[in-house]
Amino acid sequence: MSPVELTGEMLIGASDVFGSSGTFTGRDPRTGEDLKPVYGLGDRTEVEQAAGLAWDAFRSYRQTDGETRAAFLDRIAANLEAVTGELVTRVVTETGIAEPRVRGELARTVSQLRLFGRVLREGSWIGARIEPPLPDRKPLPRPDLRQRKIPLGPVAVFGASNFPLAFSVAGGDTASALAAGCPVIVKAHSSHPGTSEIVGRAIRAAVAESGLPEGVFSLLYGRGSKLGTALVADPRVRAVGFTGSRGGGLALAATAAARPVPIPVYAEMSSVNPVFLLPGALSDAPEDLGAAFVTSLTTGTGQLCTNPGLVFAVDSPALEIFLESAAASVSATPAAPMLSQSICSAFSEGVQRYAAHPAVQPVAAGGPGESIDAAGVTHLFTTTGSAFLADKSLHEEVFGAASLVVRIEDASALPLIVEALEGQLTATIHAGAADLHLAGQLLPELELKVGRIIFNGWPTGVDVGQAMVHGGPYPSTYDGRSTSVGTLAIERFLRPVAYQDLPEPLCPAGLDDANELGIFRQLDGTYGRA
Amino acid sequence: MSPVELTGEMLIGASDVFGSSGTFTGRDPRTGEDLKPVYGLGDRTEVEQAAGLAWDAFRSYRQTDGETRAAFLDRIAANLEAVTGELVTRVVTETGIAEPRVRGELARTVSQLRLFGRVLREGSWIGARIEPPLPDRKPLPRPDLRQRKIPLGPVAVFGASNFPLAFSVAGGDTASALAAGCPVIVKAHSSHPGTSEIVGRAIRAAVAESGLPEGVFSLLYGRGSKLGTALVADPRVRAVGFTGSRGGGLALAATAAARPVPIPVYAEMSSVNPVFLLPGALSDAPEDLGAAFVTSLTTGTGQLCTNPGLVFAVDSPALEIFLESAAASVSATPAAPMLSQSICSAFSEGVQRYAAHPAVQPVAAGGPGESIDAAGVTHLFTTTGSAFLADKSLHEEVFGAASLVVRIEDASALPLIVEALEGQLTATIHAGAADLHLAGQLLPELELKVGRIIFNGWPTGVDVGQAMVHGGPYPSTYDGRSTSVGTLAIERFLRPVAYQDLPEPLCPAGLDDANELGIFRQLDGTYGRA
Repeated sequence: MSPVELTGEMLIGASDVFGSSGTFTGRDPRTGEDLKPVYGLGDRTEVEQAAGLAWDAFRSYRQTDGETRAAFLDRIAANLEAVTGELVTRVVTETGIAEPRVRGELARTVSQLRLFGRVLREGSWIGARIEPPLPDRKPLPRPDLRQRKIPLGPVAVFGASNFPLAFSVAGGDTASALAAGCPVIVKAHSSHPGTSEIVGRAIRAAVAESGLPEGVFSLLYGRGSKLGTALVADPRVRAVGFTGSRGGGLALAATAAARPVPIPVYAEMSSVNPVFLLPGALSDAPEDLGAAFVTSLTTGTGQLCTNPGLVFAVDSPALEIFLESAAASVSATPAAPMLSQSICSAFSEGVQRYAAHPAVQPVAAGGPGESIDAAGVTHLFTTTGSAFLADKSLHEEVFGAASLVVRIEDASALPLIVEALEGQLTATIHAGAADLHLAGQLLPELELKVGRIIFNGWPTGVDVGQAMVHGGPYPSTYDGRSTSVGTLAIERFLRPVAYQDLPEPLCPAGLDDANELGIFRQLDGTYGRA
Repeated sequence: MSPVELTGEMLIGASDVFGSSGTFTGRDPRTGEDLKPVYGLGDRTEVEQAAGLAWDAFRSYRQTDGETRAAFLDRIAANLEAVTGELVTRVVTETGIAEPRVRGELARTVSQLRLFGRVLREGSWIGARIEPPLPDRKPLPRPDLRQRKIPLGPVAVFGASNFPLAFSVAGGDTASALAAGCPVIVKAHSSHPGTSEIVGRAIRAAVAESGLPEGVFSLLYGRGSKLGTALVADPRVRAVGFTGSRGGGLALAATAAARPVPIPVYAEMSSVNPVFLLPGALSDAPEDLGAAFVTSLTTGTGQLCTNPGLVFAVDSPALEIFLESAAASVSATPAAPMLSQSICSAFSEGVQRYAAHPAVQPVAAGGPGESIDAAGVTHLFTTTGSAFLADKSLHEEVFGAASLVVRIEDASALPLIVEALEGQLTATIHAGAADLHLAGQLLPELELKVGRIIFNGWPTGVDVGQAMVHGGPYPSTYDGRSTSVGTLAIERFLRPVAYQDLPEPLCPAGLDDANELGIFRQLDGTYGRA
């Protein structure tokens, strides 16, 4: 591909539209410098246009076969790889994320697109169920019944700031919605408009190269909540994917519920990702655990959804060693740019809240960041189990590299702690051989609170695969019945339909007697490829 | 079992509680006579008690194995069969439904319970997915990841009036929630309290016989929305199953969304179940179709969720024959008792609305019902396609045996008609060999509007099996991503959880390497029993 020339335009189907509702620019969080070009903000008009095109496109796009959509996702991946150089440069400039991590995130993003391609080629995602007719059944004959899953319709995707590639324009929500057969309208995150435009143009090129209708993809820019609200309220939009703040997610959910026809909102909102250091594991290797914890805490300058914001451990000499080790690692961690000045300000406020809390003690702080505009300085604090239980404000997420180590008097208090927690994306248990009984007691309690439970590891680093769950009870997500990472994410954008006594010539692919697609399905209650 | 003595008490776990917030009785809709005993109404206190017991029970009930829960469902079925005589008598007395249909509904109810028992014994419902570790993967090793589905928590079930067995205390919502591992708290429908008590006592006996904690099941009585609102607002209740009016369903959904922690509401609310008589099918057998239509229309005195309330056909001589045949059948249909006086009044108002509409003509009315207290008299009307498109009030459900035949000028208007329709549980297409092309055009449009599409049959008669979908886009249900009938209904009460590097001794059943349950699952992206 030739180099992408950034224009500041929205991509509305095949049209370039420079928004007329004001302008904004990206900004380098390392220097505070405004970045070219200027971006034009859209409003209701562009939402209307994009939604109209998306609905038109839906009628044919949803009928495309698995191979067509898989090849489309592969093309998006290839188009992104073809602009790796300028894309990586722009992401680094707009977000301050270090280049190796950006390259890793790009690899994850393209492999995610190809993973959904494999899901489509495999084909079992349609959830086919067939019950052959039983004309002689008493008291009533059984009709021929065939069930499959079909896509919901156009999906509004809100790009996240903290994963400018993997959870943004061509991220997990977009990949899973396109895989399901749903056109996508992305509202770009305003902290990385150039990244969004580069990725958006790569998707749009793939739409054209695949011969798909232009409305399969649009990219809009909007400031504040106005454009996003209009998008969620549009009758042609049928589901929402969002990763961001709790306030933002709840506002979209309220808009979606107030529509004449409500729609599902898959909003990932906040998570503190508690870590439980059980006594055996802690005394086995307190120093190593302390260092490894800080590595997880500071990954991405602490701005990952699965950042470990709370650590629970029984007061003990081993815990002191853990804290000393963690403190040394924190002190040795240089400040790094955060994603934006507003995220940096919110982080500083959260750190101040900890620092000013009478029951919270500082343990260590990382290197200062005088030379960085939006500097994220790592912080570690401690408090007690009773203080934690007494004050819900200590349960809240501080988005960034700050964590609170909670000293518990006795392991018997852990179930009470777990019960007091809000819903989380993850929980982590460090358990040695001596801790298995206690871990077994905690596990069922944690299952009620989280979407993923990690043993003897760290919550950051979400593997994109078939068995991942990146979701969890409210408020970690608005709808805890799903995942936003991994192949199960496709189910968010599907619903079942049954056909009774369907004439054979009208039978959709995958529901035919011969199973020409060779997919896994359920036939008369039995699973197989028959 | 010994005969059930009705006491008018609520069943709160193992306790009998006569509510102290007023009383009510059942009523025979055939005679208007109040039925003994008097029932005591509950309030917030009993909701608290039932929810507390349910939450306590959930912790152990959700951990029971498939065989335990299957045997429990089988016991409920057997206990219901053991009281067949008195149960059938009471249903007939409280609802006016004819005895043969009540017996059929009981058979359906017990077979539904046993069907979910088979789902549990088969075991694949947990949706196991395993990704073995890849320690040598670059750039990062893959951890061991295992995913399964776990139950949400206690479920509030609101009994429906029109299926006093199959959609009530031991109906589909209860069966699927109990199968999923969720305790159930039923708010009985006030039109069949005696039926509810008999069924409730059968379930409670099964709880005890199965050695399960008492809180697995409770049965409450409440008038108006107060008790139901308290139930949906209780923090220990984690999902709602409801079948009833649109207003009722929306009120519960609003309560659920306003909770500190919102929960899913599976509300089946209203459906007019359009029938499309395509020209070839209509001219092939207009007379037979007319008679068969009225059989479907009048089944259950028209009070089935899938009652065919709208019929679309191109104006033609064959349509006149259809209407004559249908009119003859309607005229020959005697009045029958409706489920309650309030349903009967609402039905009469709906019929009056049709009769008073300037663009609606009466076709026929059934036999009068002077001797019946809540008499449902069958009515058939016609209107034109343009009148239908012009007036949304003609799209609304009239709950009961009234239907509107819409005369279309030309088959080319059908897509426009479909697009104007609200979401529906079902749509029906009568298509002859000559209609296949037209049917093929309508099918994708109807898929966007409904949960089940029937060919050359009638929407009433919902087969309870593996491939059924009884659900559909809003407003036919509040959440069109699911079904309330058939085995897929279990998924409403589940959510996925992933385990990363789980120690082998803590591995839940179904996620073990050996697959000792022998369930169908996904291993490294491939489906099978490995």
